[in-house]
Amino acid sequence: MSSDSFPPQITAVTTLSSADAKWVELQKIDWKDQTGKPRIWETAARKTRSSSGIDAVAIATVLLHPTKPASTIVILQYRPPVAATCVEFPAGLIDQGESPETAAVRELKEETGYEGKVVSLSPTIVSDPGMTTANMQLVVVEVQLREGDKEPEQQLEAGEFIQRVVVPLDELHDKLVEFSSQGYAVDARLYHWAAGLDFARKRKW
Amino acid sequence: MSSDSFPPQITAVTTLSSADAKWVELQKIDWKDQTGKPRIWETAARKTRSSSGIDAVAIATVLLHPTKPASTIVILQYRPPVAATCVEFPAGLIDQGESPETAAVRELKEETGYEGKVVSLSPTIVSDPGMTTANMQLVVVEVQLREGDKEPEQQLEAGEFIQRVVVPLDELHDKLVEFSSQGYAVDARLYHWAAGLDFARKRKW
Repeated sequence: MSSDSFPPQITAVTTLSSADAKWVELQKIDWKDQTGKPRIWETAARKTRSSSGIDAVAIATVLLHPTKPASTIVILQYRPPVAATCVEFPAGLIDQGESPETAAVRELKEETGYEGKVVSLSPTIVSDPGMTTANMQLVVVEVQLREGDKEPEQQLEAGEFIQRVVVPLDELHDKLVEFSSQGYAVDARLYHWAAGLDFARKRKW
Repeated sequence: MSSDSFPPQITAVTTLSSADAKWVELQKIDWKDQTGKPRIWETAARKTRSSSGIDAVAIATVLLHPTKPASTIVILQYRPPVAATCVEFPAGLIDQGESPETAAVRELKEETGYEGKVVSLSPTIVSDPGMTTANMQLVVVEVQLREGDKEPEQQLEAGEFIQRVVVPLDELHDKLVEFSSQGYAVDARLYHWAAGLDFARKRKW
């Protein structure tokens, strides 16, 4: 696409104070361990968590088509923290007052164009609990296509550069390994889902 | 266990400056997007990354036994950032100069007592790339038990309070949902692996 003509580029990385940060902050946690001993833990937290108490949803799409293999959708998006274009499930922060199910259907439509229905919702799960307070829910959304359906238009906001890739479920793990070897950074949660799927397909017991 | 007689407790949470933090810091990233426009991203980073460039490994154990179902091992550990006891794959930071495979076998032995051999290693994957620089590798380790083998001793350091739970692979997803309903916080990566496994087991196409 013409708007994608420059590769994104990092020009500087500097230490940031919590007071100057808008989106994230560092916290010192004073706690007592199992022996009653006072200890300290350092963590990072989003400043944006809504009243729902949940930061984000990710969407495992199941794309069903009369004559094509069952597939999922991954998105490619540049992520400055890891200085790479990442391969991830469609995902997004939950808006104030929004349910996880509504956020999932909305984000899937914005990022991929596809409209689906929620078939399952995970418990609240924690993204990296040794380091951050971040949490999320995984939502499985089923999209039923008909023969001849065209690929829908994405509904991206200005400044969003997101590509979508449809991948047959049976090829997902190997496709992620291939993306990684090409220099993309694969999201750990997407990778674990694909690895679980692949493990189940190949297990001998 | 007697050393586990107090439930861990958080006594204070305060904002921390990057300068005062020992383990994590905030960074401001100046970058240019796909249109060449200068933009800013805020991220959290570990200060402890070794020269390998990889923060951590997690271990998906496959426990094989002549007469018991194939199982995995999850660990229960209090995590101050989420103020809860978490359910996670055994995991740990990679030591300076250590390979991911060696770190995986070492961490599995320390946290669970079991000794196994590495059967696969994921690419480097990123834990939460919208928010942090954190990365990791998932290592599958196979442990072959014999009839009558006793459960080995954990090799925990002073101040580590880690419980291990052996869970049959076919029950893993439902067991994680049950843990969550009991007030444990389930790690997103472990949950995604279990959800992929469960999805594959139940899929209709």
